[in-house]
This record gives sequence, C-alpha cells and structure tokens, in this order.
Amino acid sequence: MLTKSPHLFDEATRVSAGDSRWVGRTSPDYWAFVGPFGGATAATILRALIDHPQRAGDPLALTVNFCAVIAEGAFDLDVRLVKANRSTQHWCVEMTQGNDDVVTLATAVFAERRPSWSHQQAQFPQATPFEQIIPYSKVTMTWTKQYDFRFVEGEPKFGGATAAEPQDAFTKWWIGDKVPRKIDMLSLMSMSDAFFGRVFHARQELVPFGTVSLTTYFHTAAEELAAEDISRVLATADAKIFHRSYGDQSGELWSPGGRLLATTQQIAYFKA
Amino acid sequence: MLTKSPHLFDEATRVSAGDSRWVGRTSPDYWAFVGPFGGATAATILRALIDHPQRAGDPLALTVNFCAVIAEGAFDLDVRLVKANRSTQHWCVEMTQGNDDVVTLATAVFAERRPSWSHQQAQFPQATPFEQIIPYSKVTMTWTKQYDFRFVEGEPKFGGATAAEPQDAFTKWWIGDKVPRKIDMLSLMSMSDAFFGRVFHARQELVPFGTVSLTTYFHTAAEELAAEDISRVLATADAKIFHRSYGDQSGELWSPGGRLLATTQQIAYFKA
Repeated sequence: MLTKSPHLFDEATRVSAGDSRWVGRTSPDYWAFVGPFGGATAATILRALIDHPQRAGDPLALTVNFCAVIAEGAFDLDVRLVKANRSTQHWCVEMTQGNDDVVTLATAVFAERRPSWSHQQAQFPQATPFEQIIPYSKVTMTWTKQYDFRFVEGEPKFGGATAAEPQDAFTKWWIGDKVPRKIDMLSLMSMSDAFFGRVFHARQELVPFGTVSLTTYFHTAAEELAAEDISRVLATADAKIFHRSYGDQSGELWSPGGRLLATTQQIAYFKA
Repeated sequence: MLTKSPHLFDEATRVSAGDSRWVGRTSPDYWAFVGPFGGATAATILRALIDHPQRAGDPLALTVNFCAVIAEGAFDLDVRLVKANRSTQHWCVEMTQGNDDVVTLATAVFAERRPSWSHQQAQFPQATPFEQIIPYSKVTMTWTKQYDFRFVEGEPKFGGATAAEPQDAFTKWWIGDKVPRKIDMLSLMSMSDAFFGRVFHARQELVPFGTVSLTTYFHTAAEELAAEDISRVLATADAKIFHRSYGDQSGELWSPGGRLLATTQQIAYFKA
C-alpha cells in the first residue's frame, strides 16, 4: 500500500455488512453538483459486492442506473445474488434512502477469470509522461479535489465564451488519487465516472448534467491488477452524439505499462 | 408497414400482458448455439416494457445480463417499475423459467426525449450500397436466416485454417430483416446483438461463446425513428481486448441516411 489506511476514498466508499442489507453514508469529500460523485457511489456498490461473503470471482461488469438525486446522509444497499453458476455470479443492488425510495439500481457480473487465449487489439494511447504535466485544478467540486488530473489532450476551456462551433469531445488524461492510493477494482470503477461531462467539452461550458446509466467492463483479474502495483491510469474518453437531451460517453482506462484495464460507457442527461 | 403482421420477428418476441408478470415463449425461428438468439430475448424484454401500461417516454438504455441458458419453451417476465421521475423511468425485469429460476436480468431507462442542442460527432461510415453486395449466408443458425447480412468490411472466413496471427475484429455491414420489416426500437435492440462474436473474427474460427452482459443506448426518439421509415441499418462492430476468457464488443447502428440511431457494447465469454 502506498498510504496508511484509511484513505479518504476508502472512507468515502465504506459500507457495513449486513446479510442482504448493507448500510453506508454519502461523503462530503466526494461531492458533485447536487449529490455524491457517481463514481464514488458506483465504487461503494462494488465494494459491498466484493466484500460480500457469497462473492466468488472478480468483477467483470457493473451497470449503475442513477434513478434519483442521492441525499446527503445514510443509505441502505439491498444486495441480492440473483443467480450463480459454476463460473459466474449475477447480482442486483438497490440503493435506497428514507422510506425505501430507490435512488440507484445496479447489476453486476462476477466471474472466474480463467486463463485463455489473450489478444489486446486496442492500441495504447501515446502520452506525455505524468510527471511532465501540470495538475488540472480549474474545476473545484469536492470530488475533483480528491483526484490528480493531468490532461494530455482536450483540456477544457471553461469560463470563456461558449464555443460557436461544437468542439472535439475527446479527452486523454492521467488520473490518480490526489493522495496516492494503489489502483484496485474500486479505483477503476470510480475513475470510469471521473471524466467531465462530454457535453462540457463539446460546448466549452458547464451546463446542467447528470449521468443516467453507467456500465464498466473489467479486463483484468484482481490479482493481475494488484501485480501491476500502480497508482494512476492513462484514460481516454469520447462521445459520438448529443441529441434530444442525452449524450453518450465511452472511455478506456490503461495501465501506464500499456494494459487495457477497463472500458466504460455511459449515457447522460444534459440541458442545452 | 412493409409487411403484413405478424412478422416472424414479432411472433418471436411476442409477450402477453400481466400486471407485473408477463409471459412469453422462446421461438425456434430465432435460435442460436444452445439457446434463443440473445437479441430476440433482449427485444422481447423491451417489448414488454414498451407495451406496459405504466410506460412513459422512449427507450434510452437497456442492459441485459444473460444469467443462464434459456430453455426452449415458456418463460415469465417479472416487470417492475423501480423509480419514476418527471422525465425518466427506471425498470427492472427478471426473466424466469420453471421454479422461478432467473435466466435473464435486465434494467432499462425510459426517458422523454425533449428537444435540445444536437450534435453528432461520430462520422457516418462510408459503405458500398446494400444493393451491390451479395447476402452473407455461410453461418446458418435459425436466427441468422431471419436477417439479411451484407458485409462491407470484415467478412469472416470460417472453415479454413485458424488464423496464425490475430485478425482484425472490425466488421462493417448492412443488416435488415430477411422479410423486410420497418426498423423500430425492437429492431435496434435485437440488431445490437446480431453481430457475430468478435472472437470468431479475431481467431477466424467458431469457438464456444456466449454474451454475458449487453447494453444498448438509443439516440433517437421513437417518432423520429418511425419517420426515418427504413428497413435496414448500417452497422459497425469492433473489439478492444480478449483476455482471461472474456472479450468486449462495441458497435454502432446507423440509418442509411447518416443518423446514429443506437450504440451498443457487450462483454462475452469465450473458450479458446
């Protein structure tokens, strides 16, 4: 471990075990526009699953549907193993607050990552080394302060004039925890929602925005990831379309050594 | 409508309404290796949601997790509206067979597609016209016979020697129903799983394969799609990585006129 426990991220995504009912609290340290940073919420759900006594195998896919604004304070996680086979598990998680109101709905697949033929078709994105880039600090929600973002390409220019023509939504950047923390599955889950809204880049302005559905696929076994022993990833994100109040995002998270660790996609609401 | 009802696809994805419990049957006409074609299963789930009396808005995102082999015959769909806001609905659907054994778990988001700023960043893939390409007929499961596939790029060469080096997994093709049927949201859902396994392309051979989790985002309102009045789409699919028994796929479905209608991604098991 690079830091003493507990890291702020581990505090923020802490959950207390139940049988099917787990409990947690939102963290003021990972706060976004009007609620918790979605990546922290997703990582909290993943933590409950990884820590679950019935869990077998490694995270393969996690989909998180953000149903409603999550209020500051306590929440319950209703964790249910829907189906287990010899090598895969299918989970469903409902995050509720107050009067059993569902605020987040998630499904997850865990799998035994058995050895197989391996082929990485995607090309590692070339990038200026992390150390040679100045950290980005122009957006200051509390959650962005917990990360060390270093733009390789596509640094947004907010605060000036709105772009007359749509700008390229592509971003390439390094991302690590501000207080270094070894990258694990929870990091990958959280970082896969740590891109700024693509619509901000395309329009060069901040507009009302919220992720609606997020899916991340993990392309590494947990022990392979641990063996990488890294504290940051090189990440890319792009968008294909913004239309009728919704836009997409797809992204990749790479180890500095050139392994594709996770891919992610989301659809998000925007008002513009 | 291009054909008289009922089209075989509508027969195959038919469901009978219940309150929270809907019923359906697998179709021998859309059969894959060891169970129903996943696209037909996904479209059946989407149909139950679209036809649901409480449904409001258009499909925005559908995630389908294939938990177990679906047996030939009857199934139940347990359809639950988890959360509804002013402009979005969050659904959860469990497909069960026999003794309430969950075979498929799905979540869906429906949304009012309000007018907004619109920008299509992705480029329409150039393609030889549909009419100038010979239909592909070399893979003959019953479901593939229901579609008219015309390869623009990446036609697979199965049946010869396994590729010594990994081949490009990219595919571009036209896809329509063999008996023409106007493209609707159900078509897009089904066609988003109608690509052959990327691993087949990369290895140039058929290997044991199964989609584990599939997510499709819809980038068109239903009435816009109806106004397109088309019976086929231009589709692309690619993969980034095959590792430890799982590989990804991402795809795009385009109208012939150049509008991006849907994007899709999946993670699939393979044995190789």
